[in-house]
Amino acid sequence: MATQGQVITCKAAVAWEPNKPLVIEDVQVAPPQAGEVRVKILYTALCHTDAYTWGGKDPEGLFPCILGHEAAGIVESVGEGVTIVQPGDHVIPCYQAECGECKFCKSGKTNLCGKVRAATGVGVMMSDRKSRFSINGKPIYHFMGTSTFSQYTVVHDVSVAKIDPKAPLEKVCLLGCGVPTGLGAVWNTAKVEAGSIVAIFGLGTVGLAVAEGAKTAGASRIIGIDIDSKKFDTAKNFGVTEFVNPKDHEKPIQQVLVDLTDGGVDYSFECIGNVSVMRAALECCHKGWGTSVIVGVAASGQEISTRPFQLVTGRVWKGTAFGGFKSRSQVPWLVEKYLKKEIKVDEYITHTLTLGEINKAFDLMHEGGCLRCVLSTDA
Amino acid sequence: MATQGQVITCKAAVAWEPNKPLVIEDVQVAPPQAGEVRVKILYTALCHTDAYTWGGKDPEGLFPCILGHEAAGIVESVGEGVTIVQPGDHVIPCYQAECGECKFCKSGKTNLCGKVRAATGVGVMMSDRKSRFSINGKPIYHFMGTSTFSQYTVVHDVSVAKIDPKAPLEKVCLLGCGVPTGLGAVWNTAKVEAGSIVAIFGLGTVGLAVAEGAKTAGASRIIGIDIDSKKFDTAKNFGVTEFVNPKDHEKPIQQVLVDLTDGGVDYSFECIGNVSVMRAALECCHKGWGTSVIVGVAASGQEISTRPFQLVTGRVWKGTAFGGFKSRSQVPWLVEKYLKKEIKVDEYITHTLTLGEINKAFDLMHEGGCLRCVLSTDA
Repeated sequence: MATQGQVITCKAAVAWEPNKPLVIEDVQVAPPQAGEVRVKILYTALCHTDAYTWGGKDPEGLFPCILGHEAAGIVESVGEGVTIVQPGDHVIPCYQAECGECKFCKSGKTNLCGKVRAATGVGVMMSDRKSRFSINGKPIYHFMGTSTFSQYTVVHDVSVAKIDPKAPLEKVCLLGCGVPTGLGAVWNTAKVEAGSIVAIFGLGTVGLAVAEGAKTAGASRIIGIDIDSKKFDTAKNFGVTEFVNPKDHEKPIQQVLVDLTDGGVDYSFECIGNVSVMRAALECCHKGWGTSVIVGVAASGQEISTRPFQLVTGRVWKGTAFGGFKSRSQVPWLVEKYLKKEIKVDEYITHTLTLGEINKAFDLMHEGGCLRCVLSTDA
Repeated sequence: MATQGQVITCKAAVAWEPNKPLVIEDVQVAPPQAGEVRVKILYTALCHTDAYTWGGKDPEGLFPCILGHEAAGIVESVGEGVTIVQPGDHVIPCYQAECGECKFCKSGKTNLCGKVRAATGVGVMMSDRKSRFSINGKPIYHFMGTSTFSQYTVVHDVSVAKIDPKAPLEKVCLLGCGVPTGLGAVWNTAKVEAGSIVAIFGLGTVGLAVAEGAKTAGASRIIGIDIDSKKFDTAKNFGVTEFVNPKDHEKPIQQVLVDLTDGGVDYSFECIGNVSVMRAALECCHKGWGTSVIVGVAASGQEISTRPFQLVTGRVWKGTAFGGFKSRSQVPWLVEKYLKKEIKVDEYITHTLTLGEINKAFDLMHEGGCLRCVLSTDA
């Protein structure tokens, strides 16, 4: 508690500008203000959204910033009025907040809490519209309200989920983004029923989590689609029952799938972020009821399109963010499911490195064999 | 019964080629074969889908043909094995069949029965892939499995709904298409809840039926959008509470609606068939839950588009055909609702003419004051 109320100087990976290697810097992290929580991050993973912003593809991306949004840590101190957590609590920062009070939270129809969006969308904190990060007085922007590529970060209290302290933080950090996104796309957004035929476009972490979600939902066929056939072996372990490589076919992939399934799949999931694939994912759905869920994040400015006839004849086009999970309420529940061995987490971790090796971790993301790389921040 | 088993020669309006005036001809109507029903049509209305095919915009349109799909009549005779109806029954022909046995009917998820689609889509009957209409031996194609612009027509038994003989056929003929499409878009496809904010693009018959459906569902605000402000007075009678004319605004109409509703509408319905309006209808929906239903039929080859972010942030894009109603089961129920004065029908009928005046009726469709024109076929 010696640090409470004090500025903490610690190591963080700073993105000074798009596409330039991150630099490990000594960063000053201000104490949490009212409604804020300072968290000691112990483990952080990398996700494609970090790479997306780092790559300059996010028109709302602000630099310099501290990226990172899939992590776990321990509360170091809390600001005035914070009752949700206290120092010592084990937590997962949540880029999707849950306040329980806003129009969105009260609707019962969505997880997209709006309480702190106006601040987290522009890299600052709500109370004073300023950053808590600085280097020699120069402010460094927050990212997604989490900024977990740092030994310490400050988040809004509505953006932190308290979890079972028995959970291994080096594993459950993955429950901050990719794995819940895939599971929730199936359970919450599509609501896949037993016996369904499911198609998954893209067999990265999110796609594999979709497969696991579909398997637990009782899907009868889980068809994985990827242009890298080497992914099929791993995918089988997550529930994928059939594999289709679009490169092996001359026909459009939606037609290949319609032919394979006597009319189309019941549910499809786009886990890549490619607008052409999003169209194929919709159009491979069965007439009358097929539902396609967009999970991937497309490059800025790109658009999806299809013939309206696809929808008039009963297909449904949806999307999902954080799998529709209410973060503070449901991340702890996912941690419990992991502890009870009801959902996989360890199996997605293919690499472990340190925060100092973060640029190597970004390189790994583009290699076929990498699902998740977890960085320890202590090293 | 003197006509049973005989060819009937009667008057029908024949579309010899696209965009040319229909011609009242003496047409030979063959007796119904196994699984078929010959119906004496007493009243038929015109719908925009007739005009769409007549105008040559439907790439699957076949000529010469007998158009018409919104009608009512009396069974004249039935083919072998038909038990669903018998001579003398009052019926509404249903362009959307319901067999109860196919993959679609059994799914419980859609009204898009597939039993006779392969034949009705190409203007013939299932059993012998031939037409029952001819003029001096030259076959005339069926249309939508109904061809109601004729004093007699032949339909599949799965395409005819038996209704209460007390219902006035000159009114309930409208329950063959437009009115159920609008009501069902609200009740079955969108499932609008009490208190919802609803936007309706296009205030023709279908749009007004959407308004009535939304009113009975308890919507709190029903916003009608049309470029003809004169339609507002009529629309009020169907439940529209506010009117917006896009011509009165410089901002995109989706932005106008988002501003009017503190973030967007809960449900929107496109009842025009314009792909740009379909996009606006989606984008005026509230983040997190807004659902947009495409009801209108777009011109062939046109595509809808939007940014995937619209769906990822919780909007849902759907469509509907015949309002999701199961035709043979639910059209009779709609007739009962009409007889109990629970739904409007008479109020949509702005003109009555005879089959011989059908070209005038097509002209009327393009006039602002016309909702539905009902033709008697006896005259």
